[in-house]
Amino acid sequence: MNQTEQPILRETAQVDEASVQPFPSSQKIYVEGSRKDIQVPMREIKLTSTPVMGQDGTTKLEPNAPVRVYDTSGPYTDPKANIDIRKGLTTVREQWILDRDDTEQLGQVNSEYAQQRLDDKSLDTLRFDLKRKPRRAKVGKNVSQLHYARQGIITPEMEYIAIRENMALAQAKEQGLLAEQHPGESFGANIPNEITPEFVRSEVALGRAVIPANINHTELEPMIIGRNFLVKINGNIGNSALGSSIEEEVAKLTWGIRWGADTMMDLSTGKNIHETREWIIRNSPVPVGTVPIYQALEKVDGIAENLTWEIFRDTLIEQAEQGVDYFTIHAGVLLRYVPMTAKRVTGIVSRGGSIMAKWCLAHHKENFLYTHFEEICEIMKAYDVTFSLGDGLRPGSIADANDEAQFGELETLGELTKIAWKHDVQCFIEGPGHVPMHLIKENMDKQLRECHEAPFYTLGPLTTDIAPGYDHITSGIGAAMIGWYGCAMLCYVTPKEHLGLPNKDDVKEGIITYKIAAHAADLAKGHPGAQLRDNALSKARFEFRWEDQFNLGLDPDTARNYHDETLPKESAKVAHFCSMCGPKFCSMKISQEVRDYAAEQGVDIGGADTIQLIDIDDGMQKMSEQFKEQGSEIYHKV
Amino acid sequence: MNQTEQPILRETAQVDEASVQPFPSSQKIYVEGSRKDIQVPMREIKLTSTPVMGQDGTTKLEPNAPVRVYDTSGPYTDPKANIDIRKGLTTVREQWILDRDDTEQLGQVNSEYAQQRLDDKSLDTLRFDLKRKPRRAKVGKNVSQLHYARQGIITPEMEYIAIRENMALAQAKEQGLLAEQHPGESFGANIPNEITPEFVRSEVALGRAVIPANINHTELEPMIIGRNFLVKINGNIGNSALGSSIEEEVAKLTWGIRWGADTMMDLSTGKNIHETREWIIRNSPVPVGTVPIYQALEKVDGIAENLTWEIFRDTLIEQAEQGVDYFTIHAGVLLRYVPMTAKRVTGIVSRGGSIMAKWCLAHHKENFLYTHFEEICEIMKAYDVTFSLGDGLRPGSIADANDEAQFGELETLGELTKIAWKHDVQCFIEGPGHVPMHLIKENMDKQLRECHEAPFYTLGPLTTDIAPGYDHITSGIGAAMIGWYGCAMLCYVTPKEHLGLPNKDDVKEGIITYKIAAHAADLAKGHPGAQLRDNALSKARFEFRWEDQFNLGLDPDTARNYHDETLPKESAKVAHFCSMCGPKFCSMKISQEVRDYAAEQGVDIGGADTIQLIDIDDGMQKMSEQFKEQGSEIYHKV
Repeated sequence: MNQTEQPILRETAQVDEASVQPFPSSQKIYVEGSRKDIQVPMREIKLTSTPVMGQDGTTKLEPNAPVRVYDTSGPYTDPKANIDIRKGLTTVREQWILDRDDTEQLGQVNSEYAQQRLDDKSLDTLRFDLKRKPRRAKVGKNVSQLHYARQGIITPEMEYIAIRENMALAQAKEQGLLAEQHPGESFGANIPNEITPEFVRSEVALGRAVIPANINHTELEPMIIGRNFLVKINGNIGNSALGSSIEEEVAKLTWGIRWGADTMMDLSTGKNIHETREWIIRNSPVPVGTVPIYQALEKVDGIAENLTWEIFRDTLIEQAEQGVDYFTIHAGVLLRYVPMTAKRVTGIVSRGGSIMAKWCLAHHKENFLYTHFEEICEIMKAYDVTFSLGDGLRPGSIADANDEAQFGELETLGELTKIAWKHDVQCFIEGPGHVPMHLIKENMDKQLRECHEAPFYTLGPLTTDIAPGYDHITSGIGAAMIGWYGCAMLCYVTPKEHLGLPNKDDVKEGIITYKIAAHAADLAKGHPGAQLRDNALSKARFEFRWEDQFNLGLDPDTARNYHDETLPKESAKVAHFCSMCGPKFCSMKISQEVRDYAAEQGVDIGGADTIQLIDIDDGMQKMSEQFKEQGSEIYHKV
Repeated sequence: MNQTEQPILRETAQVDEASVQPFPSSQKIYVEGSRKDIQVPMREIKLTSTPVMGQDGTTKLEPNAPVRVYDTSGPYTDPKANIDIRKGLTTVREQWILDRDDTEQLGQVNSEYAQQRLDDKSLDTLRFDLKRKPRRAKVGKNVSQLHYARQGIITPEMEYIAIRENMALAQAKEQGLLAEQHPGESFGANIPNEITPEFVRSEVALGRAVIPANINHTELEPMIIGRNFLVKINGNIGNSALGSSIEEEVAKLTWGIRWGADTMMDLSTGKNIHETREWIIRNSPVPVGTVPIYQALEKVDGIAENLTWEIFRDTLIEQAEQGVDYFTIHAGVLLRYVPMTAKRVTGIVSRGGSIMAKWCLAHHKENFLYTHFEEICEIMKAYDVTFSLGDGLRPGSIADANDEAQFGELETLGELTKIAWKHDVQCFIEGPGHVPMHLIKENMDKQLRECHEAPFYTLGPLTTDIAPGYDHITSGIGAAMIGWYGCAMLCYVTPKEHLGLPNKDDVKEGIITYKIAAHAADLAKGHPGAQLRDNALSKARFEFRWEDQFNLGLDPDTARNYHDETLPKESAKVAHFCSMCGPKFCSMKISQEVRDYAAEQGVDIGGADTIQLIDIDDGMQKMSEQFKEQGSEIYHKV
């Protein structure tokens, strides 16, 4: 549907129905913090019981504790929530911000462009009906979470995050499951056993983590990006000159967070960017990032040479007052690095990087984002917008990985990090791109060193260039690895990368792939409690609790559908065999027999570290007879 | 279709039409060896030219050399080949085997079971019409490639493999592209600059590589599995009690090798296993592996306790005389390891492992595969069947990774490797399974150490358990990593893993994912010439040669379809922009401008190691004027 067919979006816009379905056997729960308005959302997956045959031959049901999972989906998956995208989400952070008493409500927007848009009546039909004015720091105040953290203040945002990040550990402790996890290898990260509010504060204060949380994004459910926390993923949305409506973009947002996007970048380069963004932020419980230069370029009709600092500055203010939580700023694309890209196989592939390179060459001046960096910091701290320092010179092919242009820029980003920190402005660093596996760790190590442990946020990296159509996979490999090595957030890649605009299926495929990468990284780093969900799912799998296996997965719908393709009947979902091998032939079944047998023989199977071996020489003949008497079938009737 | 509806398969069977389509812009070529009947197949992808604007404003076309890729698809993708699956493939190896004069044609099959099946007239309708008798080594002879290698003999198989493995390097040399590759990190592997026939021989002689090549599989196009060669992938096919016809299994074979499977395992556990296998081998240009215990179990109606050495032995002979190239033998599942699995979250998940565990417990005897191992070696060397020593105790969940059961068995597999080598029988080792990223390298290092550098062949490993429906991805991550660390062959996993039987789409998805993992590993190891295809594709991408980008990819069809979803018109395929950003806004385009500009200014962009920097202070103002005169649009008309 194009916009001419959408007469009054503010009256007609509907939430995407697929995004508001509750997850199967799941319940939205909220864990309360030290104040009543700290309500941390989680999804609790209820499990069925395990039938256990007792000594007397009767079957008892042993309950399986429900599993709580980190939930990025916001109120959309809460059947009790009243969702109306025309009104936006509840402003959960508003009181916290007011309580700090360091901001003021503005009489009007400070961006000329935003004011023009507001004055344009023809846009009324597609404008989000925002009933409040933006806020800004009072004169002389810095409202960034970094600023508070450095003063020793634990904000409600920090406490909220501590509860959220500590969820799996808290649950594992309740269930006594803590020991059942492999110790990790975190390459010198500093992951504590328990994530406390004070730990969150200290990591933010050190610059090792960021909380993207613009004061004008009061709908936000706070989250943190840092090497010592769970690995996060970003999903991209945004229209282009080739199409997509505002309603479709909101649907991509709600769909993306349903499957696990921790932040969403709005990369719109098409029509009505300003209005689209308002709809997105008002309906987003996750941080929203943008690349302001995209919109600035639209304002000069796509002619990079015509960009000016003034236009860019106005764009920053326009977006900051809407509530964008982080800005990608390509301030490291320095004039002297640009010619280094000329001999590359794929030159400059970052859109922002190529815009700035073109501007630099056309004017023979240094990048205005670099020369005005401290002024940008002043804007950032007045709204608490976090820097995502863009890697405009990231490699666009395996051939160009880790070259002097890329690493030169990275060094400059390290210098800029220090400047941002001088202003108490939060900051993280963007990274590649296309990198073969053996060169990935060098990226992570260099970033930690050059950027003083500021969080790293990478696109993939793609580990080969030969699979267009499958770049979620080529990059998911690199993403998992760099997440393990210490990358704090992974920017997703969809199957359409390099080829076309992702549809909803592609968005989901990209998100799930990146959830896999992030979780695999959490396991490898040894994040406390990370293995709990794996263990619960594996136990369900072993016990043929099919529904539990589906429901514990990242994508219950697909798992169930795949199972149904082979064994469509409902009865098959309680079958003690799976479709791969059929009813007669099942390793899981035989394995259960081994276990029952070992248990009878007194082998400790209760999770102890050592087990008692059966005395093969002495007792074997007797055991053999017993085993045969038992028969070969030991199905437990459900 | 079930078999009652297929009256006379030997008369009606048809090749899968989708498997015999030639690849777009591709040509099947054959490189001849030292004798006329060594014809090594490759696929050559033809590329379009790059339009380059000359100094005088005219556009010249600069040709791009065609790219040769390793081709597992056999004659199916050769339009000149006469494909008839009822007749099977041409017996390319027959003369080589005859020339060695160490085998004899048998008067009849040596397996009782095979004879019974032959005598059963009711099977005539679905029997492959094999017109030749099997061969076996003459008395006292050993016909394994390892045996020849150790005597210093370079077989035609070895020469064939050298040409095949050296393809990318030979091509890179021709094109002068050798330098454009990152040096790899191979963790102590011994990858030479050039793969020669003598190198192939020496690696086989050392046991570091295997050439699965049963003398009764004369249709085989030889390939090698070893850490110092290209990483290989295996695809699985096979029916189960739940269905699938013989014709469907042959279609899965031809479909799997089309997308890149280097070997195929037939894991049938359903009806007519013997006849299904005959059809598969006769139509397979790649090595076929099996797990003989599956069929042996069928012969005793699925009751593991009733298995005997005699039944198993007859099964080995039955399958060896059909031409199976490698056998998975779970000889390392020792009685003493079985109770170690009792406390696991997922017990024993290998089918073969659980069968043997059950047998051991029921009889309280040591695994008969272990006690009869030397007799098995005698059979293997009479046909040159390669051992794939099965990891019956591999972990089935993250929780169970790297435990004492798994590693105990691995140590036993190392002992068995030595016994196999004592008999000059080729041998490789199977590995896990489910392993978090940080525990993968320990598996590889231990395998190399315990198994004396015999090749490793792993299933994934899956790096998390929480994504049923996406286990091709959870495992593709682990596969790429273990391939980099030194694993020689990666057993594919499809999206249906744990859930259902894969259909053709699933097989393709699994194969492509594993081709990505294997190639990413080759790049990381620095296999000579591996980056050539990446570079060619990236160059095509940068130059908006859309068709070349599709055609150079692992799956041209999907890439093209994805592109067409957004920009369906033919004209878009020569457009100098892509669908992500639209016509006005394109980083690739801007990047080309940077390059043209740098070239004008005398910056060397010809791939030298250092580039000359523009003198910013002196020449910039002049350059700025030139650049503006040029205008911002530099589309090269095609």
